[in-house]
Amino acid sequence: MATERVDNLAGERRKAEFDVEAMKIVWAGSKHDLDVSDRIARLVASDPVFGKDTRTTLDRKELFKNTLRKVAHAWKQINELRLTEEEASRLRFYIDQPAYVDLHWGMFLPAIKGQGTEEQQAKWLPLAYKMQIIGCYAQTELGHGSNVQGLETTATFDPQTDEFIIHSPTLTSSKWWPGGLGKVSTHAVVYARLIVDGKDYGVNGFIVQLRSLDDHSPLPGITVGDIGMKFGNGAYNSMDNGVLTFDNVRIPRDQMLMRVAKVTREGKYVPSDVPRQILYGTMVYVRQGIVSDASIALSRAVTIATRYSAVRRQFGSQNGGPETKVIDYKTQQSRLFPLLATAYAYRFVSEWLSSLYTDVTQRLQANDFSVLPEAHACTAGLKSLTTSITADGIEECRKLCGGHGYLCSSGLPELFAVYVPTCTYEGDNVVLQLQTVAQLGSGEPLVGTTAYMGRAEHLLQCKSSVQNPEDWLNPDVVLEAFESRAFRMSVDCAKNLAKFSKPKEGFSELSADLVEAAIAHCQLIVVSKFIDKLKQDIPGAGVKQQLEILCSIYALHLLHKHAGEFLSTGSLTSKQVALANDILRSLYSKLRPNAIALVDSFNYTDHFLGSVLGRYDGNVYPKLYEEAWKDPLNETVVPEGYHEFVRPILKQHLRMARL
Amino acid sequence: MATERVDNLAGERRKAEFDVEAMKIVWAGSKHDLDVSDRIARLVASDPVFGKDTRTTLDRKELFKNTLRKVAHAWKQINELRLTEEEASRLRFYIDQPAYVDLHWGMFLPAIKGQGTEEQQAKWLPLAYKMQIIGCYAQTELGHGSNVQGLETTATFDPQTDEFIIHSPTLTSSKWWPGGLGKVSTHAVVYARLIVDGKDYGVNGFIVQLRSLDDHSPLPGITVGDIGMKFGNGAYNSMDNGVLTFDNVRIPRDQMLMRVAKVTREGKYVPSDVPRQILYGTMVYVRQGIVSDASIALSRAVTIATRYSAVRRQFGSQNGGPETKVIDYKTQQSRLFPLLATAYAYRFVSEWLSSLYTDVTQRLQANDFSVLPEAHACTAGLKSLTTSITADGIEECRKLCGGHGYLCSSGLPELFAVYVPTCTYEGDNVVLQLQTVAQLGSGEPLVGTTAYMGRAEHLLQCKSSVQNPEDWLNPDVVLEAFESRAFRMSVDCAKNLAKFSKPKEGFSELSADLVEAAIAHCQLIVVSKFIDKLKQDIPGAGVKQQLEILCSIYALHLLHKHAGEFLSTGSLTSKQVALANDILRSLYSKLRPNAIALVDSFNYTDHFLGSVLGRYDGNVYPKLYEEAWKDPLNETVVPEGYHEFVRPILKQHLRMARL
Repeated sequence: MATERVDNLAGERRKAEFDVEAMKIVWAGSKHDLDVSDRIARLVASDPVFGKDTRTTLDRKELFKNTLRKVAHAWKQINELRLTEEEASRLRFYIDQPAYVDLHWGMFLPAIKGQGTEEQQAKWLPLAYKMQIIGCYAQTELGHGSNVQGLETTATFDPQTDEFIIHSPTLTSSKWWPGGLGKVSTHAVVYARLIVDGKDYGVNGFIVQLRSLDDHSPLPGITVGDIGMKFGNGAYNSMDNGVLTFDNVRIPRDQMLMRVAKVTREGKYVPSDVPRQILYGTMVYVRQGIVSDASIALSRAVTIATRYSAVRRQFGSQNGGPETKVIDYKTQQSRLFPLLATAYAYRFVSEWLSSLYTDVTQRLQANDFSVLPEAHACTAGLKSLTTSITADGIEECRKLCGGHGYLCSSGLPELFAVYVPTCTYEGDNVVLQLQTVAQLGSGEPLVGTTAYMGRAEHLLQCKSSVQNPEDWLNPDVVLEAFESRAFRMSVDCAKNLAKFSKPKEGFSELSADLVEAAIAHCQLIVVSKFIDKLKQDIPGAGVKQQLEILCSIYALHLLHKHAGEFLSTGSLTSKQVALANDILRSLYSKLRPNAIALVDSFNYTDHFLGSVLGRYDGNVYPKLYEEAWKDPLNETVVPEGYHEFVRPILKQHLRMARL
Repeated sequence: MATERVDNLAGERRKAEFDVEAMKIVWAGSKHDLDVSDRIARLVASDPVFGKDTRTTLDRKELFKNTLRKVAHAWKQINELRLTEEEASRLRFYIDQPAYVDLHWGMFLPAIKGQGTEEQQAKWLPLAYKMQIIGCYAQTELGHGSNVQGLETTATFDPQTDEFIIHSPTLTSSKWWPGGLGKVSTHAVVYARLIVDGKDYGVNGFIVQLRSLDDHSPLPGITVGDIGMKFGNGAYNSMDNGVLTFDNVRIPRDQMLMRVAKVTREGKYVPSDVPRQILYGTMVYVRQGIVSDASIALSRAVTIATRYSAVRRQFGSQNGGPETKVIDYKTQQSRLFPLLATAYAYRFVSEWLSSLYTDVTQRLQANDFSVLPEAHACTAGLKSLTTSITADGIEECRKLCGGHGYLCSSGLPELFAVYVPTCTYEGDNVVLQLQTVAQLGSGEPLVGTTAYMGRAEHLLQCKSSVQNPEDWLNPDVVLEAFESRAFRMSVDCAKNLAKFSKPKEGFSELSADLVEAAIAHCQLIVVSKFIDKLKQDIPGAGVKQQLEILCSIYALHLLHKHAGEFLSTGSLTSKQVALANDILRSLYSKLRPNAIALVDSFNYTDHFLGSVLGRYDGNVYPKLYEEAWKDPLNETVVPEGYHEFVRPILKQHLRMARL
């Protein structure tokens, strides 16, 4: 390329007080993870088929076709380069465009693995692995989202023919939202009420073929299509979220997923010895992935906002000199740096959740189901917390980029529009927090994340020892404050609940308070896992010091934001809250010279960021200017429609015009 | 139309405990305002040219052309129906699609009126009123936003030819963002540094012709185009926000706007006797309009979320009966009802701001500039507060609609994407709050909104008398708590500022705290204006009672949200905060039966709402289903790209395929 080499951020990079390469390994999880990610990210970035430049100007059909092309090209690459499963998954990730394959690999296959018998797995998985069939996950319906038990689609056993009849009895029972369903999938795992001999056995999964493998037309009795445009320019419009209705569609009996229960040839419903809770294992897996994605989405937005804040100058010019970089303003720092710290915090809590999942899986294999409820509640709560904060955080980063953040070329509108559904799918965030609460109050044996509740007496009485701002740098002090606040909020809720004669009524009436208590509990988990991380051996000059600063910023900005809860529970005094705020300001100053290096440590390519404002080289203005001219409106000097609709106004000829 | 008449919300409407027609008048401002709005809204809704159905699927060029068509049709209607200025403005408003005319009427004309001399007004205004010229407002530059004094474009007087030479000396001086500039405007008010005889007199406005009135081509020396795609599907992509550079473009001397200062034929710079502050008058006007728009945008989102919440059912089914309406959940109420109350609160504070503007204008005409700084600070702060909360509130309403809120047919993605730039334009919200603070601390005579600060001693010592939940229903009690909190936060800031030897350094270091104090002050203004409104005579059965409930919810939800500030300043005790929360819950129950009627009172047509979820008749599911099939992807059963990119995967023929 003939472009000049610029690095407008070189000065910023020289200020770093730590080993960026070592931090990259910490962020990636290991040297191996960093190497794989780095190699695959560059592979994607260098391939013109995976370019994202036109994404926001394509109309729906072009965008969708372009996505099909990327998926096919990726599959070709995966096969030709003989990529491992890990590499293939990274490749799909760095392509960074929602597509039907996400559901094929992320939901269809795991559903068969988790809920199919060994024979069923042997039959269906090879076809799916080779993509000789393409599948999706058809659970939600037009009238039914989070409440799976409310689904209306029926699967009625017909003993005459040894088949299930899949049927949509109402409009609201239409399957609605499944990704990949609208135009591509040949098969689906369909969730339907199992009816045998007139008895309703609740919701179960069924493998249903939707489209002909010859000509891709929908099979008889199946009506299927796309549900229409979604938020954002490109965003999820590259995905064919679909609508599907069944008019008495028959499938063989052996396409019911039968790991947990089966229906025999004679029409007998027989539960297996695999407990239903096994299904929670899949939810724990999916949700820990969502927490990990939260840290990635937030860190992308933070990278863009941080780099641009070190380029953009505004006000503060003295004697005609340059204006001040906006990153040097305390107002900018107090909004941006907590988000940077949050990205790191979520990264580490997701690392922990991933190890928790491994633990749960091992225990399940040994028929130990004891930790499942807590793991389930805790991933639910963390999914809810991290996705809500990340969605808001991306939008905050957009605002931190001022007007230019509103341009698609900033990458932030896309990032936001792609991200926000995460707050709703896989369990609405508020519903999930209530599940967390239910677990908190369940009186189950206290292990792991709720262990602090075993120290009830201490936590109800303890007084924070903080007397000076620096006292807040002690992790034990921070942890105790968060434990005390979370515990006392739970106790207050319990006291208030006890005033109701019917527990259910109390739970309903106080649900907003319960959600706040659950959030306090989840924030405590994130803080404590960050502190745990710092107890590990972390190599690299200055790396641990930076992480300590980030950990303090994460905890103390939460303390400031939720000061009301720390104060009203008597966990802290006003003075102590004010001291936390003082030290927070000085931590921002400490972080400032490292800000660019800390976002460089995420190791994102310019392709993945997809943002003119977040370019590695900080060469923002010339590129913004260049991008503008690519808009279709600039293809002609005089716009289409001028002669018909503008000139008649200017020339006062409008009365004669036909519009 | 042959469609069946349904009203799924009729039952909800019957529950209302107040006179909805009377409330409509309160919301509209007067019977006259209601009548005009109602008539024009229906006119727009019934005209197929103004349909919005295809908005989110059109590509950029089609969307833009469609917008030009709507504008031309509107102008034709305005002339043919001989609409008054008020009616014409309402018509443009209800068309609900950003277009170049917004800037022509909203910025270009007011700039000439406010900054032009009488002769200049006589020359240019008639042309602009008849739209024989179309103008925009070219202030911001690629490198310069909020800091007007940092603009780089120059206007150098050439005494030889009696002209100004308008020039863009750098890339960053390119005009960037002005709406209507990119493809349509023939003229612009351009802000540039006035240079006379080598001396820089700062930024001034100039009328510059951009395009030929013959063939619409840019005049020599002018490079102009569109800046590209922005956030959202339709949204502001219907507007030609533009980029503009000048290569030594000459304009006659009399095209400098000379109300405040002029340059004579001899090249002498002569300030007039009109003080510069007069320009603040325009800002007060524009910003009070923005506060009014905030109440409208928020109330639209709330209408959609409220109606849909009364249709959508989830969980809570007993004995096979229907599930519970989501509006009946306390978690839903505690997120939705405060936003409903906020919409009303912003409506009344904008009403007050509008009267403040009238007052300011009258005083300015009498050469009384005394209230201008406070009016300026107060509109700046309220602009910032109301737009931030509204943007977040629209997104919250989208989330309250669950998954379906993510569909464009919900109307909420569009509403959000169109709304968010308001947080940035006309003054970045954080910058504005700092201006408010600067005014608070300026020691100017205390009148109007800052009058409470005159009761310093009382506000520093007072203890709230609240002992029972019901005590919080007393407006005086609420007001005192808000005054005490705002005042004590200001005092705390002042104390902390005093610790710095250089005030400027302290201001910078503590700016995040100052912003919080400014927000507390602005919230107090909104609360107090709502309370003032309730002191007026408000006709209509039950209307005042509903407004009292809304006022309490508005104030008490803020109190809950910012409990940390009420507690840490010692304005309230933990017990009092908890009591506020108790009464808040019971207020939600009181509001519940009136929720639908309270959003009906906004009197929005289905056309204006543009939302399947927010339909007046609540007929959500059949219409969602119907809308889906209109997506371009559903034009064919087998999608474009299937044969090229999907079939080769399924048939394992990918190696041979050329992608």
